Amino acid sequence: MIVDVNKKILIVGLGLLGGSYARGLKRFGFHISAITRSQSSIDYAIKENIIDEGATELDEKSSGEADLVIFALYPHIFVEWIERNQNLLKSGALLTDVTGVKSGIVYKIQNMLRGDVEFIAAHPMSGREVSGVENSTEKMFIGANYIVVPTEKNTEEAIETCMELGRLLGFQNVATLSPEEHDEMIAFLSQLTHCIAITLMTCNDKENMEKFTGDSFRDLTRIARIEDEMWSELFIANKPALLEQMNLFLDKFKELKAMLESEDVEGMRKMMRHSTRRRALFDEE
Amino acid sequence: MIVDVNKKILIVGLGLLGGSYARGLKRFGFHISAITRSQSSIDYAIKENIIDEGATELDEKSSGEADLVIFALYPHIFVEWIERNQNLLKSGALLTDVTGVKSGIVYKIQNMLRGDVEFIAAHPMSGREVSGVENSTEKMFIGANYIVVPTEKNTEEAIETCMELGRLLGFQNVATLSPEEHDEMIAFLSQLTHCIAITLMTCNDKENMEKFTGDSFRDLTRIARIEDEMWSELFIANKPALLEQMNLFLDKFKELKAMLESEDVEGMRKMMRHSTRRRALFDEE
Repeated sequence: MIVDVNKKILIVGLGLLGGSYARGLKRFGFHISAITRSQSSIDYAIKENIIDEGATELDEKSSGEADLVIFALYPHIFVEWIERNQNLLKSGALLTDVTGVKSGIVYKIQNMLRGDVEFIAAHPMSGREVSGVENSTEKMFIGANYIVVPTEKNTEEAIETCMELGRLLGFQNVATLSPEEHDEMIAFLSQLTHCIAITLMTCNDKENMEKFTGDSFRDLTRIARIEDEMWSELFIANKPALLEQMNLFLDKFKELKAMLESEDVEGMRKMMRHSTRRRALFDEE
Repeated sequence: MIVDVNKKILIVGLGLLGGSYARGLKRFGFHISAITRSQSSIDYAIKENIIDEGATELDEKSSGEADLVIFALYPHIFVEWIERNQNLLKSGALLTDVTGVKSGIVYKIQNMLRGDVEFIAAHPMSGREVSGVENSTEKMFIGANYIVVPTEKNTEEAIETCMELGRLLGFQNVATLSPEEHDEMIAFLSQLTHCIAITLMTCNDKENMEKFTGDSFRDLTRIARIEDEMWSELFIANKPALLEQMNLFLDKFKELKAMLESEDVEGMRKMMRHSTRRRALFDEE
């Protein structure tokens, strides 16, 4: 379906990600409309020719004409939108999203959704430290992962279409995971790392540390600049999986501390060698 | 003293740091000799013209002629070298080092040292993920911090000379700290970050995570490739200060976990805003 450039695309939420989707898809000639809260975002996106039309209120025409609707919203706003407005959608429309957590949202949306439209969840694993459509760029997808997160309710066609969307956008790796696999992976690779970064950044308020800071501290705290509204919502939306990963980390950290206390050199060296071997797997090609 | 290029410099331990010191100083025309375990390191350094002469065994001539001796050794080997060989040193010689921990070593060395030579401690805060003189480069000091760590036993002249050494080597920031201030700063900025990185890298051995890894996980684990012999020794050499920082981190991490458990959104958002504000201080100019 998606390769047919005559199909119409609606993007709901035109921020950094929504704007980057618009840019990435506009290159192929799709007709793109957008609904977002801010008029200046619409004005900017039209001026930059990354959307064809846009509205700040619910747009019944765009909603009713779109063959593909991409939701780039906070999780709870996404759920509210579907509850209130799904009656407007075109029969046969395909819906997808960019939400960073899945189990808590995918089943909820699929269970409330009309039978003649389909929601296939996806997570573009790409972010920047800035926000807003003005900072959007399709370049942020280069080298990144795009995860399609199907359930038993999804059709093969929707899964294939969603994977093709990821490839059209320029993602390097397009894969599928179940909602539960996805959430465990995100809890470990993304949410736990943000928990660690903000903890490190706030656990010692001694002054003038920045004068002596080297690369390692900067590397560990780059993501400590964090959008508090979105991330607190994502943490809670993935609470069980994140708590499990936090506990794994805590247990191992306490183990290291106990080895230091007892001066167990061999134990520490063994852990460091394990760490070194395992980190080698994560080197970029 | 150091600006007189007729002075002779001896480097004990010609690895990554020792070799980078040799390169940085050779540019000014100093006579540089080296003592190190490996003949191939000596051969390489002579071929590359970064030292004038070198030996793999204790070299009485170099040791007796050097005006400045730079020790780039593991802490316990540095202490042993002084115990065994200080009788060979030239009267009036100045000794310095590159050791990453200070309280546990500076007083020990200064207390055992002959009265007619002086040891002024220093810590070049620069490292690479590779080792050996073959990987040495004076470029690794560009933009980095050089900390001189004087005690009451040091003369103003030695402190000044050591600071000048840091500037000659190309360090951007040359500062002084007491051994205790230095060790607290290192425990927090460097050792705690390494503890966190190796814990994150080893706390979940699930397979295939690397397929989905993005920048944030890579940033947090870059230093998880760690030289186990040196770092376990440095951790233990700075045990009280490091344990204190590990406890600060643990307490704050548990606080965050408790907020997630109780879904205290406002508490989490407050911590995230604190983190964001504080991280801004650490942005590089």
